[in-house]
Amino acid sequence: MATNEVYQYSLISALMDGVASNGIPISQILSHGDHGLGTFQNMVGEMIILDGEVYQMKADGSVVHIDPEETITPFATVTKFQPTTTVKSTLRDGKKDLQSLLDELHPEARNHFLAIRLDGAFRKIEFRTAGGQCRPREGMVDVCSRQTTHTFVGKRGTVVGFRCPGYVMGINVAGDHLHFISEDRQRGGHILGFETEGEVRVGVAVLSRLNLELPKGDGEFDGARLAKDEEGIKAVEG
Amino acid sequence: MATNEVYQYSLISALMDGVASNGIPISQILSHGDHGLGTFQNMVGEMIILDGEVYQMKADGSVVHIDPEETITPFATVTKFQPTTTVKSTLRDGKKDLQSLLDELHPEARNHFLAIRLDGAFRKIEFRTAGGQCRPREGMVDVCSRQTTHTFVGKRGTVVGFRCPGYVMGINVAGDHLHFISEDRQRGGHILGFETEGEVRVGVAVLSRLNLELPKGDGEFDGARLAKDEEGIKAVEG
Repeated sequence: MATNEVYQYSLISALMDGVASNGIPISQILSHGDHGLGTFQNMVGEMIILDGEVYQMKADGSVVHIDPEETITPFATVTKFQPTTTVKSTLRDGKKDLQSLLDELHPEARNHFLAIRLDGAFRKIEFRTAGGQCRPREGMVDVCSRQTTHTFVGKRGTVVGFRCPGYVMGINVAGDHLHFISEDRQRGGHILGFETEGEVRVGVAVLSRLNLELPKGDGEFDGARLAKDEEGIKAVEG
Repeated sequence: MATNEVYQYSLISALMDGVASNGIPISQILSHGDHGLGTFQNMVGEMIILDGEVYQMKADGSVVHIDPEETITPFATVTKFQPTTTVKSTLRDGKKDLQSLLDELHPEARNHFLAIRLDGAFRKIEFRTAGGQCRPREGMVDVCSRQTTHTFVGKRGTVVGFRCPGYVMGINVAGDHLHFISEDRQRGGHILGFETEGEVRVGVAVLSRLNLELPKGDGEFDGARLAKDEEGIKAVEG
C-alpha cells in the first residue's frame, strides 16, 4: 500500500440511504491503510483506525477492540498515514481553530484531501456515537436522530480525521471529519466539538489520490437512489 | 494495471474552470489503461485512446496519432478494458438506444461505472471538437462555444466511452460520454449524436473502482474554485 493516498469503501450517500447490511472484511480495509474512519454493519457505532488497530465506539460511549478478520464494514475511509507536516498547537475553539491551522499550513491544498492526527490532552471533547439501524435500509439521518452525545473533561487521547474537498460531497463528507479515542482506548466517538488542554501535536499529510471501491454484488447498494442530501450529510457528519 | 478499473487524472470541474495549462505525460496515463477519453494541453482537440493508441482529434476534424512520451494531458479517464458483455445491436436513435441497451444489459450497475466500446458501420455521426483555449484559464463553456461540429455519413469506426454514476458529477461527467474515431483513424471527435448502419458490436464492462489522481504542484489547479457547474457540464459534455 502506498503512503498518503485515500482508500475508501462505498459512499457516504449510501449510508445516508441506509445501505449498511453488507460490506467487506475490515482486514481488507487495513491492507490499504492504518489510519481511518468508518462505521460498522447496520451503523452500530463509530469506527476509528489508529496505527492499524480498529476500535468500535458504541452508543454507551464504550470501546471494543475489533478483530479485523471477523468483522465487516459497509463504509470506511483510510490512508497509510505518514505526516508530512507536524506542529504543536493550542486549539481553544477546537474545530474552528483546527480549520484555520490547516488552512494556514496547507493553503495550496484546498482542492486536495488532508489526513489529520492530533495527540495530547483535551480540556473538553463533545462527541456522539450512532447506535445503529432499527431496521435494514433505515437512513443515516434517522439513525443519528437517536445518537447519544457524551462530554469528556480532561482526557488524553488521539483525534483521527480527514478533510475532503467540496467536490466529493456525497462520495465522502466535504470538510473536516474527526473521530476521537482516549489514550486508554476505553472511550470515544464522532467529534462534535473540542478544546485542547494547552498544546497538542498536530500531524498532517496532503493526499492527492482517491481510490474509491464500490460494493460489488450488493443488492442494497445497487438499488439505492444515492441522491446527494448535502444538508443531511452536513447535519449528521459536519 | 488491473483490468476494468477507472483511472482518472484531474477533474472535469477543473476543465470547466479552465485548468488546462499543465498535466502529466500521456505515457503515465497509459500505464493505467488502454481505452479512454480526455483532452490535451489548453484543451486543443479531443482525446481518444483505443487499444492503447492515442489520437488527438482536432477542430478541423483531422486526427493526429500522438507520441505518449512527448505529450501531456490536463484531463483523462482510462481503463484497461476487458468487455464482460458483448452483444450485437442496431442503434437507430444512437445515444438514446445505447442508453436503453446499457440499462437493459446492466440494470444492477446504475451506481457503478461502465466502459463502452462500439465497433461497426455508422449511417451518421454528429460530433464536435474543441479548438482550444484563447487564453490560459479560459473555461470550458467558453472554449466549447467556439467548437466546430461535423457530420459523417456512412463511416466505419469505433466509439469509446464511459457511463459515470450521478454522484461523480463534477469529478467526471455523469451519464454517457462518447468519442468516435473512424476506422482509417483519420477523423473523429466528441459525439453529439449517431445512428448505426445495421448492427454494431457493443462491448461493455462494469467498473467498480475509481482511482482518481489529482494534479500535484499545479498552481492553476490549486487556485481553482471548482464550483460544480452541473448545467454547464451537461451543456458541453452531455
